[in-house]
Amino acid sequence: MASRFDPNFTGNVINAMGPKTSPRLRQLMTGLIQHVHDFARENELTVDEWMAGVQLINWAGRMSDAKRNEGQLLCDVIGLESLVDEITYKLADEAKDAPTATAILGPFFRADTPYRKNGDNLVTGVKDGEMTFMHGQVVDFETKKPLVGATVEVWQASTNGLYEQQDPNQVEHNLRGKFVTDDEGRYYFYCLRPTPYPVPDDGPAGKLLQLMDRHPFRPAHIHIIATHDGYKPLTTQIFDRKDKYLTNDSVFAVKDSLIVDFVPRENDPQAGLELKYDVKMVPENKSAKS
Amino acid sequence: MASRFDPNFTGNVINAMGPKTSPRLRQLMTGLIQHVHDFARENELTVDEWMAGVQLINWAGRMSDAKRNEGQLLCDVIGLESLVDEITYKLADEAKDAPTATAILGPFFRADTPYRKNGDNLVTGVKDGEMTFMHGQVVDFETKKPLVGATVEVWQASTNGLYEQQDPNQVEHNLRGKFVTDDEGRYYFYCLRPTPYPVPDDGPAGKLLQLMDRHPFRPAHIHIIATHDGYKPLTTQIFDRKDKYLTNDSVFAVKDSLIVDFVPRENDPQAGLELKYDVKMVPENKSAKS
Repeated sequence: MASRFDPNFTGNVINAMGPKTSPRLRQLMTGLIQHVHDFARENELTVDEWMAGVQLINWAGRMSDAKRNEGQLLCDVIGLESLVDEITYKLADEAKDAPTATAILGPFFRADTPYRKNGDNLVTGVKDGEMTFMHGQVVDFETKKPLVGATVEVWQASTNGLYEQQDPNQVEHNLRGKFVTDDEGRYYFYCLRPTPYPVPDDGPAGKLLQLMDRHPFRPAHIHIIATHDGYKPLTTQIFDRKDKYLTNDSVFAVKDSLIVDFVPRENDPQAGLELKYDVKMVPENKSAKS
Repeated sequence: MASRFDPNFTGNVINAMGPKTSPRLRQLMTGLIQHVHDFARENELTVDEWMAGVQLINWAGRMSDAKRNEGQLLCDVIGLESLVDEITYKLADEAKDAPTATAILGPFFRADTPYRKNGDNLVTGVKDGEMTFMHGQVVDFETKKPLVGATVEVWQASTNGLYEQQDPNQVEHNLRGKFVTDDEGRYYFYCLRPTPYPVPDDGPAGKLLQLMDRHPFRPAHIHIIATHDGYKPLTTQIFDRKDKYLTNDSVFAVKDSLIVDFVPRENDPQAGLELKYDVKMVPENKSAKS
């Protein structure tokens, strides 16, 4: 399709890069400039529209600090973080010599999460939650051999939509813990059935969601990191099949394989629900393609 | 080409927009999401690379205030403002009912620039500049009829690369003025042969330029706005053909038709150079396509 605009312009901008540009940066900037220019031409972007985008980005930067990354959230609501997660995971999986899969932890991970004993209860001071007995086995994804001494770390928001570090009314390290698998590779503990919550929507990401006629909610989920010597660390989130936001996560993180079922549990005074989730780990020197 | 990644992902993100999204925003976000996702997939963007981009954008926002728009400058160094300028100018030109062409003024325009008399000297207190007699005629682009009483407003940086409002050592309104064309449509005054200067390079735009092995300089230029009742206002910049940065403007604003020649001027004690620049204006109800 012939352009109505100067056909040499984009090439000139790309070719302005000098010889000392690193090969990867040259590749990325070439692609970025080409796509940004194509976007502007295809949609005949006006000065006012472009300037509105500039102001949105400047607003995101002004709002960001050590506790909040609004630029990241802007990317999240257009699916970019989840897409990059998929790309990175696939690359790491395909590269047999990759020491670990790159992991997206999300903003509420804490490096100093305490170890707890299997059977412990993660929940303190939450009146309106549905108590759940979560358990499972950590195994080698191929041989199904149980992995003894694996670490399973979990964290979740409370029923008010807040993680403990966001909420002065929760005790330190509430709703998070690390568990070590037993002689059969099993872990088990009590937690909440997770509940949906909105991403912060008082900034440019919220404004963009509103303009796109979208809600800010994430479906209920539990964060998991599993590690074991000789295996690739696994970072993931699991989602409640019955959540109303399952098919329209505001940050597009749901994958079919990450949907789980909370089922009724009988004869347990501590929990009315049960969740079984087995973690299948990939040896460091293998690919999970199968 | 079959994607190695989930083929439905981008469509799902686009289709998340609700029915109350305005048609134009839907169009723009559809294009933006498609291009951003294609960019990520085609280049297999990693989490670390994506996060470096997020930090760059957040940095631009933190640096921006009433006097500095770093988000704009980031766009400028990848040619986006100049491209959007071209698109907007073409659209305004093609739409016969458009009241005015949208104009990019740049950050150093002042609304309160004083009127001066033809023949006045714009230059105060500059020792090292090349004095220039600039003159020309404002005419109807088609009939060539001189436009009497048109306003020609100009502004330029001093030889130290600073506009007067950036520089406490320059007198108020130095190197800027408005002139009214005489009975033959002519304007004339004394100014400097402009000199190149760098865009601010102490922020993310400067960092990006450095990573792309590019310099921050803009070729020497004079800003012009011409107005006359019944004609579309014209905002432009003219560039010195001999400037070393003419073919590699850091913000890609040079167009062939905007390049001018400074020629020797004889027998004028006030100036050793002369610049003739005729301004061709388009009636409000016409298109300049010709």
